[in-house]
Amino acid sequence: MARHDASMSVIKRLPRYYRFLSDLKSKGVVRVSSRELSEKMGLTASQIRQDFNCFGGFGQQGYGYNVTQLHEEIGSILGLNFRFKAIIVGAGNLGRAIATHMSFEHRGFKLIGIFDNKESVTGQIIKGMPIRHISGLEDFFNENKPDVAILCIPYNAAPEVAKQLVDLGIKGFWNFSHYDLALQYPQIPVENVHLSDSLMTFCYKVKQATENE
Amino acid sequence: MARHDASMSVIKRLPRYYRFLSDLKSKGVVRVSSRELSEKMGLTASQIRQDFNCFGGFGQQGYGYNVTQLHEEIGSILGLNFRFKAIIVGAGNLGRAIATHMSFEHRGFKLIGIFDNKESVTGQIIKGMPIRHISGLEDFFNENKPDVAILCIPYNAAPEVAKQLVDLGIKGFWNFSHYDLALQYPQIPVENVHLSDSLMTFCYKVKQATENE
Repeated sequence: MARHDASMSVIKRLPRYYRFLSDLKSKGVVRVSSRELSEKMGLTASQIRQDFNCFGGFGQQGYGYNVTQLHEEIGSILGLNFRFKAIIVGAGNLGRAIATHMSFEHRGFKLIGIFDNKESVTGQIIKGMPIRHISGLEDFFNENKPDVAILCIPYNAAPEVAKQLVDLGIKGFWNFSHYDLALQYPQIPVENVHLSDSLMTFCYKVKQATENE
Repeated sequence: MARHDASMSVIKRLPRYYRFLSDLKSKGVVRVSSRELSEKMGLTASQIRQDFNCFGGFGQQGYGYNVTQLHEEIGSILGLNFRFKAIIVGAGNLGRAIATHMSFEHRGFKLIGIFDNKESVTGQIIKGMPIRHISGLEDFFNENKPDVAILCIPYNAAPEVAKQLVDLGIKGFWNFSHYDLALQYPQIPVENVHLSDSLMTFCYKVKQATENE
């Protein structure tokens, strides 16, 4: 069991395995071979076996994997059975979309609060909870002890909010802002979603494909 | 000039360089050394020089880079001066957030249409344009010739919509659904944004940090 030796690139593939297995499970599939998984996922079978070996195997040579068991194991490695308490900071379009669109409870989290700095949106209800004014963050924190924060705020607003959250004891950031939290707070887990970087990379790909036509 | 030899991992760093340079430019900074860039970006100076060498250099040894020029060059490599015509398919919370939140025009794209399969939202105005019913997709396509589609639809709806778009001649997908377009249509550029995978990876990181406390 070499759980902690798994590299980040293996870890980043686990959610995909988890999704595929959820799908198989919902279709009533009981067993799956690494060859079948590889065909459906566009990875080599040996890559898949190697990935699973990082966590001590899961399967018996030649018998394939038990879908339910593998699904549960991977979910548990990812920590999806946890209920880390999350708050969203920034209730603009993106923050609202994240609040309403994501299944936090199936991904290891529980959304417990949404904050914004605009008086005009304070009190509006999103996903059954009121948008709170950012000035109440400290009181909320002391009372509810959120574990992580989801930053849906602009670049310029991020340093101050991040510093306050770190001082209050936040344990992780899901970061949609472009502020480089990992550079500033290397001790705190950060997962970045850089939508404009993704859009620019997409632009490059489309441009290349168009030029090679 | 080895533009086409640049690996995808180099390409994926270009948007970050571009953002940093935009920031420097807006602050009136004229020149920047690879050492300064490296400190601000958490990369090594030699990594940065190597990345830029993939595109033929940009700088003179010892003089640093001209910020405006480098910014323009990288923008042009990414193709941000293009105006690829984009449509959004799926006007739920996520589609609306993408429509209103993203600066398409600074990222190589122009949003020209938003589609949904719900009659009840058809006609609603987002970013100055009406949500169109998906049944009008073909006519719209023939008239306006969109280049790319942004898929903000659920997994189950994706195969059919994707097939229709590919048949109509779409040239790229910015894909927020979990449908594996790259596996299905390997000839078409796809950039995926898997928000739930990112959330699960984040869960793993928080779990690991909590366990190592």
